[in-house]
Amino acid sequence: MLGGKRMELAMIQDELMPIEAVPHSYMDRAMYYGDGVYEVIRSYKGRIFALEDHLARFENSLEAVDISGVGIAAVKHRVLTAFDRAAIENAKIYFHVTRGSGPRNPVETAGLVPNFYLTITELEDATQEKVQGLCVKTCPDLRWKRCDIKSLNLLPNILAKREAVKQGCDEAIFVDDQGFITEGSASAFFGICKDSSAEGHWPGICLRTSALDVNILPSVTRKYVLKCAQLIGLIVTEHSVTVAEATEAEELFIAVTTRDIVPIIQFDGFSISHGKPGQVTQALMRAFEQCIEEDISP
Amino acid sequence: MLGGKRMELAMIQDELMPIEAVPHSYMDRAMYYGDGVYEVIRSYKGRIFALEDHLARFENSLEAVDISGVGIAAVKHRVLTAFDRAAIENAKIYFHVTRGSGPRNPVETAGLVPNFYLTITELEDATQEKVQGLCVKTCPDLRWKRCDIKSLNLLPNILAKREAVKQGCDEAIFVDDQGFITEGSASAFFGICKDSSAEGHWPGICLRTSALDVNILPSVTRKYVLKCAQLIGLIVTEHSVTVAEATEAEELFIAVTTRDIVPIIQFDGFSISHGKPGQVTQALMRAFEQCIEEDISP
Repeated sequence: MLGGKRMELAMIQDELMPIEAVPHSYMDRAMYYGDGVYEVIRSYKGRIFALEDHLARFENSLEAVDISGVGIAAVKHRVLTAFDRAAIENAKIYFHVTRGSGPRNPVETAGLVPNFYLTITELEDATQEKVQGLCVKTCPDLRWKRCDIKSLNLLPNILAKREAVKQGCDEAIFVDDQGFITEGSASAFFGICKDSSAEGHWPGICLRTSALDVNILPSVTRKYVLKCAQLIGLIVTEHSVTVAEATEAEELFIAVTTRDIVPIIQFDGFSISHGKPGQVTQALMRAFEQCIEEDISP
Repeated sequence: MLGGKRMELAMIQDELMPIEAVPHSYMDRAMYYGDGVYEVIRSYKGRIFALEDHLARFENSLEAVDISGVGIAAVKHRVLTAFDRAAIENAKIYFHVTRGSGPRNPVETAGLVPNFYLTITELEDATQEKVQGLCVKTCPDLRWKRCDIKSLNLLPNILAKREAVKQGCDEAIFVDDQGFITEGSASAFFGICKDSSAEGHWPGICLRTSALDVNILPSVTRKYVLKCAQLIGLIVTEHSVTVAEATEAEELFIAVTTRDIVPIIQFDGFSISHGKPGQVTQALMRAFEQCIEEDISP
């Protein structure tokens, strides 16, 4: 059996090759370990929204996983260069930085150079789901304990989302061991809940969402949603919604960069706000449009 | 700014290209999500050790993440073909299967074909660390709740191992919220602990290791270690070792495919078994050699 010449090799599908012939990308630590962090940004009408917020978060992610040698100014330059060249008005900009490419060893070789990868694509129109609302399904939050890092380790998110879609839903909502909703598989989660102590323009109700902690991503869209709440005079309580509370909420919605605010009309089979987007959510959506105009105005 | 022609595009480092020109591997779901599972197998003296055990575990991992369309017989054929061609006596065989390559959407496009990737390299000689023993360092187990799946989401393992190495140690040992040791960042963990009720050839001591559950990988080497314990008449207790117990253990060791049993001589700065491999660990190492001979004999 060992009659041939000794050779370190690789195999891609059925193709054998000397190990030296393996494309650089197969030795990317993203491929072996998910050893990298990413961002998703969008543009409205030819202008990028909340760019500095996303870059600041990206810088935090890089620091949290100790990937160095990537300047945020350089990342910004690449994003702007690519965006300018793509000339897409409503664009989805994805990019990641990984620790680099090299032999598969947990501790990287000294001098490894980080890899940068970006795509710019047309954003799918979200009008229909914003008008009609989404159906969501809860699932146990099995993720690691540093969900504040926007890392490439997304398998639990993928498995949750696939399961939700299999059951005819649009998004999976993570629930922790104590029954609290943390966030969606690819979105932040919000409830408009009864609150007898709440005053302001919307007395008796408040906007509930998880407080920023290691168990959720510091969503950029969340920040703008909270700003919108202030704009419309809605009291905000940063305390996670329980499954029971969500079921009985006045309204529910998710927030995500690519679609901003999207109403939820069904939660684990329970009809929410009579099966159509609620009035408070719609008021927030209008305020969000105002935030967008301010942010992207020249 | 939007004067150019609209074009979906990608950027790799500083190079812009039309999105259609992106290499297949960049659209691998391993790259975006770590959406795949893997195995590491080794050979001794030109024969693969515990192949069926690894293939069975791989099949379980595939099923757990719902990747279909990959027959285990086909995987085995690829492994054997590549191993035969490499003609390396003491080889490290790594392979993974991912859900496939496609546009970045959590739910994959229908008909996506899984990707297979394998490398065969020379195993580094582990004689020195087996003779001298390792220094290990504990760290909080921040991983997800399905560590029984050998998935490509390994960032917490990487971060733990890098931190241990930074502090002059060889391996990171995960400790859960209750103070129990689950396993190493890339190894199973074992203690030789005092146990007044233990009888057999080694009275008063037992081999302790975590029970198989969703919080640890069902280590193939662990299975053979337990077999070795039986061979030398050592009582086994499948109950996780606490940090305090580990500090005071008679002996400690890790087990990993690429190096089988490796003694620990320092645990969080505490000297273990007087700073050299203990006699029970050495008896297990000798028994392991016997297991290898039996498994790889023609």
